[in-house]
Amino acid sequence: MLVVMQAHASAEDIRRVCDKIESLGYRAHSIPGAERTAIGITGNKGEVEPGTLDEMPGVQEVIRVTKPYKLVSRDMKEDNTVVSFPGTDATFGGPGLAIVAGPCAIESREQAFAVAERVQRAGAQFFRGGAYKPRTSPYSFQGLEEEALKIMAAIRDQFGLKIVTEAIDSESLELVEEYADVVQIGARNMQNFSLLKRAGRGRKPVLLKRGMSATLEEFLMAAEYVMSEGNYNVILCERGVRTFADHTRNTLDLSLIPAVQRLSHLPIVVDPSHGTGKRNKVTPLSRAAVAVGADGLLIEVHCDPDKALSDGMQSLYPDQFDELMVQVRQIAPVVGRIVAGSGVGAISGASAR
Amino acid sequence: MLVVMQAHASAEDIRRVCDKIESLGYRAHSIPGAERTAIGITGNKGEVEPGTLDEMPGVQEVIRVTKPYKLVSRDMKEDNTVVSFPGTDATFGGPGLAIVAGPCAIESREQAFAVAERVQRAGAQFFRGGAYKPRTSPYSFQGLEEEALKIMAAIRDQFGLKIVTEAIDSESLELVEEYADVVQIGARNMQNFSLLKRAGRGRKPVLLKRGMSATLEEFLMAAEYVMSEGNYNVILCERGVRTFADHTRNTLDLSLIPAVQRLSHLPIVVDPSHGTGKRNKVTPLSRAAVAVGADGLLIEVHCDPDKALSDGMQSLYPDQFDELMVQVRQIAPVVGRIVAGSGVGAISGASAR
Amino acid sequence: MLVVMQAHASAEDIRRVCDKIESLGYRAHSIPGAERTAIGITGNKGEVEPGTLDEMPGVQEVIRVTKPYKLVSRDMKEDNTVVSFPGTDATFGGPGLAIVAGPCAIESREQAFAVAERVQRAGAQFFRGGAYKPRTSPYSFQGLEEEALKIMAAIRDQFGLKIVTEAIDSESLELVEEYADVVQIGARNMQNFSLLKRAGRGRKPVLLKRGMSATLEEFLMAAEYVMSEGNYNVILCERGVRTFADHTRNTLDLSLIPAVQRLSHLPIVVDPSHGTGKRNKVTPLSRAAVAVGADGLLIEVHCDPDKALSDGMQSLYPDQFDELMVQVRQIAPVVGRIVAGSGVGAISGASAR
Amino acid sequence: MLVVMQAHASAEDIRRVCDKIESLGYRAHSIPGAERTAIGITGNKGEVEPGTLDEMPGVQEVIRVTKPYKLVSRDMKEDNTVVSFPGTDATFGGPGLAIVAGPCAIESREQAFAVAERVQRAGAQFFRGGAYKPRTSPYSFQGLEEEALKIMAAIRDQFGLKIVTEAIDSESLELVEEYADVVQIGARNMQNFSLLKRAGRGRKPVLLKRGMSATLEEFLMAAEYVMSEGNYNVILCERGVRTFADHTRNTLDLSLIPAVQRLSHLPIVVDPSHGTGKRNKVTPLSRAAVAVGADGLLIEVHCDPDKALSDGMQSLYPDQFDELMVQVRQIAPVVGRIVAGSGVGAISGASAR
Repeated sequence: MLVVMQAHASAEDIRRVCDKIESLGYRAHSIPGAERTAIGITGNKGEVEPGTLDEMPGVQEVIRVTKPYKLVSRDMKEDNTVVSFPGTDATFGGPGLAIVAGPCAIESREQAFAVAERVQRAGAQFFRGGAYKPRTSPYSFQGLEEEALKIMAAIRDQFGLKIVTEAIDSESLELVEEYADVVQIGARNMQNFSLLKRAGRGRKPVLLKRGMSATLEEFLMAAEYVMSEGNYNVILCERGVRTFADHTRNTLDLSLIPAVQRLSHLPIVVDPSHGTGKRNKVTPLSRAAVAVGADGLLIEVHCDPDKALSDGMQSLYPDQFDELMVQVRQIAPVVGRIVAGSGVGAISGASAR
Repeated sequence: MLVVMQAHASAEDIRRVCDKIESLGYRAHSIPGAERTAIGITGNKGEVEPGTLDEMPGVQEVIRVTKPYKLVSRDMKEDNTVVSFPGTDATFGGPGLAIVAGPCAIESREQAFAVAERVQRAGAQFFRGGAYKPRTSPYSFQGLEEEALKIMAAIRDQFGLKIVTEAIDSESLELVEEYADVVQIGARNMQNFSLLKRAGRGRKPVLLKRGMSATLEEFLMAAEYVMSEGNYNVILCERGVRTFADHTRNTLDLSLIPAVQRLSHLPIVVDPSHGTGKRNKVTPLSRAAVAVGADGLLIEVHCDPDKALSDGMQSLYPDQFDELMVQVRQIAPVVGRIVAGSGVGAISGASAR
Repeated sequence: MLVVMQAHASAEDIRRVCDKIESLGYRAHSIPGAERTAIGITGNKGEVEPGTLDEMPGVQEVIRVTKPYKLVSRDMKEDNTVVSFPGTDATFGGPGLAIVAGPCAIESREQAFAVAERVQRAGAQFFRGGAYKPRTSPYSFQGLEEEALKIMAAIRDQFGLKIVTEAIDSESLELVEEYADVVQIGARNMQNFSLLKRAGRGRKPVLLKRGMSATLEEFLMAAEYVMSEGNYNVILCERGVRTFADHTRNTLDLSLIPAVQRLSHLPIVVDPSHGTGKRNKVTPLSRAAVAVGADGLLIEVHCDPDKALSDGMQSLYPDQFDELMVQVRQIAPVVGRIVAGSGVGAISGASAR
Repeated sequence: MLVVMQAHASAEDIRRVCDKIESLGYRAHSIPGAERTAIGITGNKGEVEPGTLDEMPGVQEVIRVTKPYKLVSRDMKEDNTVVSFPGTDATFGGPGLAIVAGPCAIESREQAFAVAERVQRAGAQFFRGGAYKPRTSPYSFQGLEEEALKIMAAIRDQFGLKIVTEAIDSESLELVEEYADVVQIGARNMQNFSLLKRAGRGRKPVLLKRGMSATLEEFLMAAEYVMSEGNYNVILCERGVRTFADHTRNTLDLSLIPAVQRLSHLPIVVDPSHGTGKRNKVTPLSRAAVAVGADGLLIEVHCDPDKALSDGMQSLYPDQFDELMVQVRQIAPVVGRIVAGSGVGAISGASAR
């Protein structure tokens, strides 16, 4: 159920509608738009009687929402959500393309700093690196945990990069929130509803990756879980889905970007590193992701990928990342986007093929 | 790495090899077989030097295992694992077929007892019912939680049925272990590695459902996560995978059963209710699951499926479950299995089509 | 559009309705049922005006069919279609289970006769063997063509087995119709609509395999293509679909069997050889196919599979086929089916696992 | 098997090697490269003895090819294949991006001419339109057949557009070759090997669409079928594959483009109309296809899509096609491509989102 307020409704009107909703045992989510405020109603008890709210002062209409998602929907909030970071011009969903780069896993201070220095120079505003690694095998490297978080905090201090890193359970989420700027929920946890709710009660933006076989609706519903707890700063991320195709590790589904943008106000970025699993596919698919209209890119970069403790095969060399940024800078304006920083790469301008 | 002990190796020999492994910073898993004991070595540090163990008394050979899974493998343990329950003859993996039945969710004491009475009478040894429900929407019924666990404990007392129910995070796992006989990990959490490790440190058998797009190897590796923490009582469950096919909710992959049985000693059961999502497909696919050689069935039964708070569409009426048991009893002997209890259904004998 | 005639409608009434339909530029398909006749209307011109037919003598009702398939539908013909072969009791869709067995490809007279002798002795009524092989590579063995057809005709004469073999284009179809008893259309040609229409104008029953990624509706529509040309003897065949799963060559989708049986009157058989692609999975999945309610099995058998020119990996040894027939004989009665012949295997009775 | 000739080998040397190969009962395919000639050996009889050819004059080396495809491979021919059309500068695989546009089906002379006029003006060099339509239902519009071919021939005369249209069997192929410039083989016929061979014996370039669940290897092998008969002008086309995802009709797999370009010298284009099945996704995915490096686009355009006899839902309005061409012109240079004609759209320059 969605209550759309009149354009001239007062703050007092809005407060009274919210109080009424809460008094009925539901939860009210007031989301201000450019012109008017909408109030979403959620709860575990079934449908509200619309009559109760229809006649209150300032209420324009009460809409029965038939789509299973509400807070993520453009019906609820027409304008794009822009996730911003005080003191910087980095955003997800703003006019600037969000560039998130870094190694799959933080392996040491030296490794992480070396990568950070290069990606910052090339124009990234966000640094990504795994502290907690969800690995298929219990015997694979599982991450440096809090030590990695501390290294990334030092990277923020030194390079001014905002930190994006994954939390895999309540305990790690607690620590990630303390050290990082964006909490990543990985594909394998996209339907770990306890973790989603916990992230929804947190204070940091959440970057939510699409599950390996999630439909668009399931993906949006996972975001709804986070938002239903009160955290509205959710960034979606397409990272490839599982199909019969075997020439890439996953099949990157770029058609999801315009599909999400039609239905939802949330920003959506693309991870071509996991999406393809092969270094030589990352640059062409990054170009395609920008061209399709994505709000940003997540790119794995490693100075010595052959020695990486995880996912080396899909990590770019720093020089390749420079070249990618050159190409991204050329395509971004076609879709009305800008790319922060002039970037080292800006000098080169080599052909893309 | 796997240490195979000689047939005549003493308990002292075995203990010494285990101590040596632990002193090297790894973990030793001693698993006694019919003839000889094998000791699996796991750990987060890379490969052990085999030379260290090769020459110890009682050691027959040290095998480098190239498959990513070890503890789940038939290389490690040739005989089938039989998960048994003291004081009953109910097992998973023994000669008797394990029949687990009950409603998708526990909705009330009355509802649960009514179903329990019927499924016990028809020959089930296990009762299943959701206390914590992982639902796609945050606004759907999420389960009665501890209240449901108490109802199921009462069902065990009254009907002698063993209780199988799902845990969705560390907190619910704590409670499920306290009240239930088998802890279920759902498909959506198959790669929630924190939960798998936590279940591995628990004392109750774990029924692990295959993820919606999990390969055989990923499924076995998830079981390996549980076993690597010391809990060897893992029961696998095929419940359908996600494909393009739209005539069923999921595509039940019965070929997984012989594939698992070749590679692993763990028991594997089939859930045709989630595997098809349609009531009229449950009985034919249950017959097929028994015929293919599964160790048991998970069946949703509800006395009033049209009013079920979740998954009513795929729940059998008690009379249909009686009929299913009749057919299962006829097929089981062909694959060398027996079905406990004579069952009400035994009288009927109606044709299956 | 479907015209349902009254139970007492005369042959003359039926003829007049058909004439009327044809005079309107459509095609009439009169299909007599146990109680009453239904007349399907097909054509390339859009919808008929129902009013024209409603009032004619003998007409009970005119039904607008919203499902895209008509002739394949149970709405059109309630009773199961039984494809029978004069002079034998072999059928597809009758009480007897249809057992079709033979090598993937006919390689020589010796090879084919050796297999035929064994499968006939074990209880098969149909012999299958490839004369024209649709191979992924143009450089692979493409079949002995007409020579193979002659060998199979000789097998029919000697062993009394009915012959099932694939046609891959109009030219081969011409010859297959001349020599064989059932024309097979392979999975890769399921939407080769020209071939389907050509087979629909033929006089021999058509065994149509499901395409590798065909939905149930597309599969039924392919059968509709054959039937719309006047050939109503269509046998459907599930042979596995393409998914992400890699433990079998294809994923055998046994839930298709009850789904087809609900919607269509056509018989449906299962090919566990192509459906799994692995010899050790053929027997368990054959048991499952019979248990789920399929009308028959297609099994590849080869006396020396390691030397087979195609698909040796999935062919059973004759002894394994004997054993499979033993198990099939035990399961068939549970689903109300009988298996022709006592079979050599009947003696053994070994356990199925 | 591949014979690589020395750089200075004479035409006589090459001829002698080819003769030798043919005398051994195989087929020789001599393909001249920038520096040297390679000779592919194909045939249905197994491996050639390399010793026979190794010592002949002008031979540099004889390579056993382990990949199943030969003629399509970059090993065989390092330089990109450019399919060109005498008297025009339109190509597939050259520096210019190939733009193929037109209605799904030719419905009438008026409809076709109206679309042709618009797409030619916007910069397309190729006109596409269905004369023979492979439709899921036998009762759907199946195309105007030869009448449509005549309309398209008239369009070539009037607008100078080259004609691309689909053949569905030997009979239609005969006619399509007579009237059109490029013969299209549709996704459903990608493994109709008889049709592929027939097209391989033809004189017109073949545009081959990827099957709905074809792997990269199967796709290349289908092209190999055409080439093995002597027609080397094959253009590949990605048009979406079938997955569980339901927000688009198919899942457009853009990662196939760089994957094909690594392995094969053949040009590859993208069809975002069938690839998404939704009008509002065509433009963003067209941008992405150009950015990923495709050699061209196939776009459905219809002046009145709501009245289209097939696939109206995915057809662009002419104005939308103009706008798409503006965006394509902006992205093409980033990947080193040019777009023929200045195009009407070139004036506008509106933002892409």
